[in-house]
Amino acid sequence: MRVLSGIQPSGTLHIANYFAMMQRMIRFQQEHTLFCFIVNLHALTTVYDGERLKTDTMNACLDFLALGLDPEKAFFWVQGDVPEVCELTWILNNHTPVGLLERAHSYKDKIAKGFQPHNGLFSYPVLMAADILLYQADAVPVGKDQKQHLEITRDIAIKFNNAYGETFTVPEPWIEEDTAVIPGLDGQKMSKSYGNTLEIFAPEKYLKKKVMKIVTDSTPVEEPKNPETCNVFALVSLFMDAQEKAALAERYRAGGMGYGEVKKELFARMWEYFAPYRAKREELAGNLDYVRQVMAKGADKTRAVANETLDLVRSRVGLNY
Amino acid sequence: MRVLSGIQPSGTLHIANYFAMMQRMIRFQQEHTLFCFIVNLHALTTVYDGERLKTDTMNACLDFLALGLDPEKAFFWVQGDVPEVCELTWILNNHTPVGLLERAHSYKDKIAKGFQPHNGLFSYPVLMAADILLYQADAVPVGKDQKQHLEITRDIAIKFNNAYGETFTVPEPWIEEDTAVIPGLDGQKMSKSYGNTLEIFAPEKYLKKKVMKIVTDSTPVEEPKNPETCNVFALVSLFMDAQEKAALAERYRAGGMGYGEVKKELFARMWEYFAPYRAKREELAGNLDYVRQVMAKGADKTRAVANETLDLVRSRVGLNY
Repeated sequence: MRVLSGIQPSGTLHIANYFAMMQRMIRFQQEHTLFCFIVNLHALTTVYDGERLKTDTMNACLDFLALGLDPEKAFFWVQGDVPEVCELTWILNNHTPVGLLERAHSYKDKIAKGFQPHNGLFSYPVLMAADILLYQADAVPVGKDQKQHLEITRDIAIKFNNAYGETFTVPEPWIEEDTAVIPGLDGQKMSKSYGNTLEIFAPEKYLKKKVMKIVTDSTPVEEPKNPETCNVFALVSLFMDAQEKAALAERYRAGGMGYGEVKKELFARMWEYFAPYRAKREELAGNLDYVRQVMAKGADKTRAVANETLDLVRSRVGLNY
Repeated sequence: MRVLSGIQPSGTLHIANYFAMMQRMIRFQQEHTLFCFIVNLHALTTVYDGERLKTDTMNACLDFLALGLDPEKAFFWVQGDVPEVCELTWILNNHTPVGLLERAHSYKDKIAKGFQPHNGLFSYPVLMAADILLYQADAVPVGKDQKQHLEITRDIAIKFNNAYGETFTVPEPWIEEDTAVIPGLDGQKMSKSYGNTLEIFAPEKYLKKKVMKIVTDSTPVEEPKNPETCNVFALVSLFMDAQEKAALAERYRAGGMGYGEVKKELFARMWEYFAPYRAKREELAGNLDYVRQVMAKGADKTRAVANETLDLVRSRVGLNY
């Protein structure tokens, strides 16, 4: 089965990204045919700083390669390196009612947030449809905010298939079972937009300081504590097996242990857990030309699949004369 | 100077096309750097019949090659064979206010005519901007109906240049001095939409019949006639030099000559004038693989120019990481 997933090139991965998304990606790449790409063409809808997009894209390459995305097993590429997607976007435009785009929540939301309504934001769902249909993806993991876009993709695919005969796989949404919410420093869901994250590849001192800031209640050291309502407990148990977790819960309930102690444990576990990834990332960051080669190879491999679909589409609509 | 002009792949060229457009193209290719392309990607906005688009595209290649468009002198290609234009379209979308597209007359006209409002029609001016800016065209010959589109192109180019530094040539409209209106069979301006055309490459019998149908007044044979109000005179003089034209006008005024006689003359002149082009077209039509090779070579030559611009644009917006 072909599973497709796009990655925003927008900065620093945090540990909730890792446990919610990255581990899933690794599972996809083992169990399915994974198409995973860094969406720099989408980013153009909101990023008008070329240097920033360049850096963010390279960082996303480094992050995902370091964390175990394997370009030999999966299709892994930078969106803009497979320009076939823009060609398909133009073709699909002609099968996308304007009303469908006008009703897209993401467009309305962006406008409400004060973004200038330009045609990139407006047409974004068509690019997303092309992303999915070009690779004949069977399943697309979608969060709530992307569900409507997948519906638009399905509408376009069905419309095109009806007009020209079976051409595109109509993709299904892949709804993940609810994973436990991972709390951030302040106890809210960990999210870049709340500024409450623990970044995977941040420097040691900075990260240690952040861990120490995690909000707890003010139960004195000697008193028993409730592990189930404790953010530090929730975070440290991500790096523990069931036995370790039970033992720690025991110590919470026994009293005599301060939160500072658990925070130190959390930092130590986290730092150790990501050590091999950190080493890998540093190695890659020291050899950007090699990374560019890897991504170029990934794009080539992906273009072969893209061109199978595109050639069929071109024939159907009459571009191959 | 770079002059750019698109050709609709929509059927049969008539003699008004030839004298109004084709001769101008030939002049452009001699005096300037001509970029001339068959707009099959634009055609997708209204043509949903793949076989028809295929045939029309090939016919346009045959017509223009036969009539003297020289792929060695000019850049001559089929739009969809240079997919870089779709990539630039996506990039420019992000610099095109939705309001600018909403105000485009051509979109409103198409909707008023009953076309379903899809995103191809809506976004068409952005593709047109990409067509022009990708080749850094200095001048674009525009009719009245295309003037607003060129304005949109200029707006986008200026906006992009302001944001990222000088990148695109801001193109100027090339307004042609009014050429004399060439009448059709019914005396209205010759135009495909009036169904009153004399096709350049139509079969002999069919064409002769059409010429015989040209509307004249009913002045009897023996009486003097007015060449200045006569459609047949206007048409036949396209194929005459000044001396021949004066002599024929004399015969009109003298009386004793029927319109049928001038019609026969018109047919004979026309048939003879286009004979070498007809022969050339037949030769090409007998060797479509050769034509495809010529067009592929034209696309390669054009892609080299396209990629110079595109690479600069990609660097500016941060796609080259």
